[in-house]
Amino acid sequence: MVRVAVCLAGCGVKDGSEIHEAVLTLLSLQRAGATVQCCAPDADQMHVVNHLTDEVVEGESRNMLQESARIARGEIVPLSEIFAADYDALIFPGGFGAAKNLCDFAVAGADAVAHPEVKSAICNFLDDAKVLGFICIAPAIAASALRDHHAVVELTAGNCPDTHGALNEMGVKTIDCDYTQIHVDTQNKIVSTPAYMLAENINQLAVGVDALVSKVVDMCNE
Amino acid sequence: MVRVAVCLAGCGVKDGSEIHEAVLTLLSLQRAGATVQCCAPDADQMHVVNHLTDEVVEGESRNMLQESARIARGEIVPLSEIFAADYDALIFPGGFGAAKNLCDFAVAGADAVAHPEVKSAICNFLDDAKVLGFICIAPAIAASALRDHHAVVELTAGNCPDTHGALNEMGVKTIDCDYTQIHVDTQNKIVSTPAYMLAENINQLAVGVDALVSKVVDMCNE
Repeated sequence: MVRVAVCLAGCGVKDGSEIHEAVLTLLSLQRAGATVQCCAPDADQMHVVNHLTDEVVEGESRNMLQESARIARGEIVPLSEIFAADYDALIFPGGFGAAKNLCDFAVAGADAVAHPEVKSAICNFLDDAKVLGFICIAPAIAASALRDHHAVVELTAGNCPDTHGALNEMGVKTIDCDYTQIHVDTQNKIVSTPAYMLAENINQLAVGVDALVSKVVDMCNE
Repeated sequence: MVRVAVCLAGCGVKDGSEIHEAVLTLLSLQRAGATVQCCAPDADQMHVVNHLTDEVVEGESRNMLQESARIARGEIVPLSEIFAADYDALIFPGGFGAAKNLCDFAVAGADAVAHPEVKSAICNFLDDAKVLGFICIAPAIAASALRDHHAVVELTAGNCPDTHGALNEMGVKTIDCDYTQIHVDTQNKIVSTPAYMLAENINQLAVGVDALVSKVVDMCNE
């Protein structure tokens, strides 16, 4: 049975994991017969955003692991307990938390660095030739984590020239594709898809997420 | 085009809406071609639960509308702005928020009362012969809202004798069915399904949610 870790970054598109992307990833993995373990760094989010007003909530902090546990229904472990040897793949859903909490791409752009545990996990999965999946803006995490790594990776980046430019500057080869498509970096066993960077509704979103999960699981079985 | 309102109760199974149930409801509705409007009361949750430890977080409060906006990606309105005349159906996903925030069934049992706006919405949709859908423990909301109403309604209630007993005491005829099934109260145009009261994983959950949404949309078109 294929074993897949899903790394979350909180609970909500504006300060954590994009909830639809995370839930549809879990649904696709379950349908593909994979064993799933959710995880997240046991660390505070960059900030808390009121999803009704888009305003940052001053004086409030939320912990990524605790908030991600909402999506995982409590079935979650700290990212520090996820080892590449125990899994076939690691998938990162998107949401601004991917670019605010798991790395600082949202504020630092091409100078972004990844959270140390995230960097370690991505490098270890890559070096162990395990499969990696990045959804929506999550390719920015990969770019941040791998900036000092010898691998040159190929990743989707939506259709915003600034995002492509920043990832290119970080050493990534960016690929154009629409929400129905995935890109497979066969050399590095990395699958990515633009998801809500381009999908306009949850049904469109499901097409790309299903395609990514299906490919990830197939590659685990190869 | 069928117009459906989805009433949320926060964001997370232990103190708000069950996230998987809410997201899969939105996905099914989109796939069925319905126009969807999320809503929630603009009021505080009963409490905040740390979903990692199951402990109540002392001194913290969260607002249902703001937290539900995480699931709705910001596209949400106060329940007070939802009028039966503008919609064909109203669906309530489950999660403890259904029984803690939208009514107080989790603490009051058979003595439960519904949040005033929730009671008003349910009674208005029922009296206007619109379709109502209740997922998981959400039938407790219907029972609380309709306890003084002349209608005798039929609702699913999982397989816990205490839940059946409490709903029966509130005047509801409870129906046994498994997670793959829905029950249709044709007299009152109410559809319900046990969802995560019986489903053991997200794939099993999707079966019941899809069946409920499909039936609700069909009944709107009749």
